[in-house]
Amino acid sequence: VTLRTAFTELVGVRHPIALAPMGGTAGGALAAAVSNGGGLGLVGGGREEVDWLERELRIVTENTSKPWGIGFLSWGADGHVVERALEYGPAAVMFSFGDPEPFARVVRASSPTAKLIVQVTDLEEARRAVDVGADIVVAQGSEAGGHGGSRATLPFVPAVVDLVAPIPVLAAGGVADGRGLAAALALGASGALVGTRFQASHEALVDAEVVKAILNGHGEDTERGRVLDIARRSPWPERYTARTLRNAFVERWRDRPDELAADTATLDDYQRAASRGDMDVVAVWAGEAIDLITEAQSASDMVGTMAALAEESIRHILEP
Amino acid sequence: VTLRTAFTELVGVRHPIALAPMGGTAGGALAAAVSNGGGLGLVGGGREEVDWLERELRIVTENTSKPWGIGFLSWGADGHVVERALEYGPAAVMFSFGDPEPFARVVRASSPTAKLIVQVTDLEEARRAVDVGADIVVAQGSEAGGHGGSRATLPFVPAVVDLVAPIPVLAAGGVADGRGLAAALALGASGALVGTRFQASHEALVDAEVVKAILNGHGEDTERGRVLDIARRSPWPERYTARTLRNAFVERWRDRPDELAADTATLDDYQRAASRGDMDVVAVWAGEAIDLITEAQSASDMVGTMAALAEESIRHILEP
Repeated sequence: VTLRTAFTELVGVRHPIALAPMGGTAGGALAAAVSNGGGLGLVGGGREEVDWLERELRIVTENTSKPWGIGFLSWGADGHVVERALEYGPAAVMFSFGDPEPFARVVRASSPTAKLIVQVTDLEEARRAVDVGADIVVAQGSEAGGHGGSRATLPFVPAVVDLVAPIPVLAAGGVADGRGLAAALALGASGALVGTRFQASHEALVDAEVVKAILNGHGEDTERGRVLDIARRSPWPERYTARTLRNAFVERWRDRPDELAADTATLDDYQRAASRGDMDVVAVWAGEAIDLITEAQSASDMVGTMAALAEESIRHILEP
Repeated sequence: VTLRTAFTELVGVRHPIALAPMGGTAGGALAAAVSNGGGLGLVGGGREEVDWLERELRIVTENTSKPWGIGFLSWGADGHVVERALEYGPAAVMFSFGDPEPFARVVRASSPTAKLIVQVTDLEEARRAVDVGADIVVAQGSEAGGHGGSRATLPFVPAVVDLVAPIPVLAAGGVADGRGLAAALALGASGALVGTRFQASHEALVDAEVVKAILNGHGEDTERGRVLDIARRSPWPERYTARTLRNAFVERWRDRPDELAADTATLDDYQRAASRGDMDVVAVWAGEAIDLITEAQSASDMVGTMAALAEESIRHILEP
């Protein structure tokens, strides 16, 4: 038995699980592994160079015959790169954080088949997703790792479901196991988009130290803020803060973002420390659900396990 | 068919729903209505005077023959008042926000039957709840209306379930309809504790203006902070901020709590404006799930409707 939803039907996957297109982390190998496991793998277009993206898109096409996709940042994507990516034949293209309208037009003009996924962090963005003709809406809560907004997943998802119906919704933020997936479905979502859990997989492009920090960390060790974006001289829009593991650098600068931005010497030091992987400064993107992540696995196995446990969790409610 | 859980069995109620013991709002009439509807009504002991509490306890005992209970604030309760309340025969007594240990001893010493419910906002508090022998643990997320902590319900609940097993857990924060209850159960909780939704009931002790604000408000109109506690000269511990509807007073003072605390003239003005019900200043405790609350109902009806919709939501996952 499998959990069939509007999402699994629309994109033709077995399980209602999508990989969050984590920039730099969700490469072709991870996306292919998630797709081979029965979910929808999404390569993280993020802020990477087009050469990186094309290499990862070749890897995903060579490693799976199942549907897969790509995710871009609406505030930072380049229409030509999106067009180029579409030539690799993704089943879905996702846009997050910013106005998706220009890219929605690119996708519609360039591909007759690619589904348009739009991620939203508040109700206004959800309305905009409907306006631009999204095929799938991702409602992302603030417990998500990495960048996001300020709504919490549990009350936000049903509000988005009601607002965008009948467009299928994926829940994102705080889902790291079968129970979280079951909860997403109970809230009326057609599946879940999962990030941090897949960071702790064999196929993710992450350092071993980062995986170790995620496996050992707790939700209370994470926080949202702008300090690490400022430190990285990253041009993320202010409204999208990032959830990371707390570290010495965050503790030091949390309350002084403007001072940090103006302190060139500290920013240069940061860059040097980050590039040698100093865990006191690097941004370990991590969602609040890391309490539930205790071992690294193959991403393909994670998909099947999560789906099976979600179904078990749901059946258990009716037959305790 | 009903949703049976460890919670419904333990306290002898029909539906896995408890009323959040909202101070001043959850009086005897509301608690009795929730209990009569098949949930567990909890009178809000809060910061009220003992005369208020005894009056409301008489009301609840006169209006229901079903199990009901009382909730107290661990940081502000008086052991003698707890003893007095126990004489009214509650099926459960709940303690929130602070160390429950002294009160756990009072409950055990004074009542052979009352179940001990401990509400927690982080994993350390959850460990403490186990240590003091809680019969039921409430895992409260920051999307809750009123006072609380900083964890989000969806990832926090399963982490608490794992930590305190086999003690049954209720999810609190962000649950305002059947889908939220279904999600709580999917996360492994044995039910949900619901506040804001019951504030918009006929039986709640709230002004009509407050109910109207809740029905019209959206999750994005709420925020957590200390400003209104400072304004009310309320001695709440700093770590427990309160989620309220945003208003002009909050906007004005959000970033200057220390300045506000020292500004006696403003505090006096606040008190006058609040006592005449000025909606630009009063604290309207409201959770993020208010998007889902669109009409005021009888609390008894709410319980049955929420349980029925939760079951429908769960069955729909297995048979779309």
